[in-house]
Amino acid sequence: MIKDLIARNRTFRRFDQDAKISREILEELIELARLSSSGGNLQPLKYILSCDQDKNDLIFPYLKWAGYFTDWDGPVEGERPSAYVIMVADKEISSNYFWDHGIACQSILLGACEKGLGGCMFGSVDRVGLRNALKIPDRYEIILAIALGKPKEIVVLEEATDSKNIKYWRDEKAVHHVPKRKLQDILLN
Amino acid sequence: MIKDLIARNRTFRRFDQDAKISREILEELIELARLSSSGGNLQPLKYILSCDQDKNDLIFPYLKWAGYFTDWDGPVEGERPSAYVIMVADKEISSNYFWDHGIACQSILLGACEKGLGGCMFGSVDRVGLRNALKIPDRYEIILAIALGKPKEIVVLEEATDSKNIKYWRDEKAVHHVPKRKLQDILLN
Repeated sequence: MIKDLIARNRTFRRFDQDAKISREILEELIELARLSSSGGNLQPLKYILSCDQDKNDLIFPYLKWAGYFTDWDGPVEGERPSAYVIMVADKEISSNYFWDHGIACQSILLGACEKGLGGCMFGSVDRVGLRNALKIPDRYEIILAIALGKPKEIVVLEEATDSKNIKYWRDEKAVHHVPKRKLQDILLN
Repeated sequence: MIKDLIARNRTFRRFDQDAKISREILEELIELARLSSSGGNLQPLKYILSCDQDKNDLIFPYLKWAGYFTDWDGPVEGERPSAYVIMVADKEISSNYFWDHGIACQSILLGACEKGLGGCMFGSVDRVGLRNALKIPDRYEIILAIALGKPKEIVVLEEATDSKNIKYWRDEKAVHHVPKRKLQDILLN
């Protein structure tokens, strides 16, 4: 059931860094994005893959982790992602990618979840730094990054009791809680 | 396997209009969007549902069907969608919805596909007309519409042989063909 997979597919920020992810696995995930819908069928999205330690180390410093955790700079060595997908738009194809990026993210992360992996999407990326580090040509707009690994934390969904307070939080056992608005609160009629 | 579902989840534009979709089914699909990831967990997306003929008839005229088919104004009576989801952003929560809309679309449409339904996403919407027809308050930004129904056409994926020519097309038997770029053409390294 797709509902089970969607419910299990949470955002994870701490991983078992020793659990490697192969290039082949990453390509299987991109294949899911490739098969997904694209506005006007333009398919301007392209992908840079990383699954070796040296390249991963190049990428890590340019990602901003967990905006609500002001006292946490991201996972420590040993709990860092085993792989990354950098999603870019090929401006020579189109500078408008509609909502393709979200569709592709969901396909990639549902595929990862099915394989026992998990990830985190980053819009908050130091794009200048990342472009220089990976020598990404100007032709490509850096849209977002996805960190991937074998999750090493528990994430639980809960109902938002107060519609103003939807910040995720960690309890004393480092369990990550995500308050979700109720169904009746997101339906307008 | 999620890959099978993603591959089956094509864009459909002709439906068996007699196959009704209940409000309950629509709410099950929105539940999938609700459980999906949201940037900063802000969850600004909200939904207007339609599954009765009168409301469907109000929505239909404001959608632009199949941009590449200049001689086709959309499905004829009898082949029109049985339901619609109008996705809006609640600007009182946030005017930035990152790529939540794509994530939500993919969750909704994968759920529909699993139920034997199919749909089509519309960014090309007469927003002024639709806002007036449905009396949508200014507080809500109209992001996109999803038409849903029981598909009544065959859609096949094929490999794009020429990277410049990715327009979908219909053959003489009205089978809809969608050329997809090859995996090696969307990987940058």
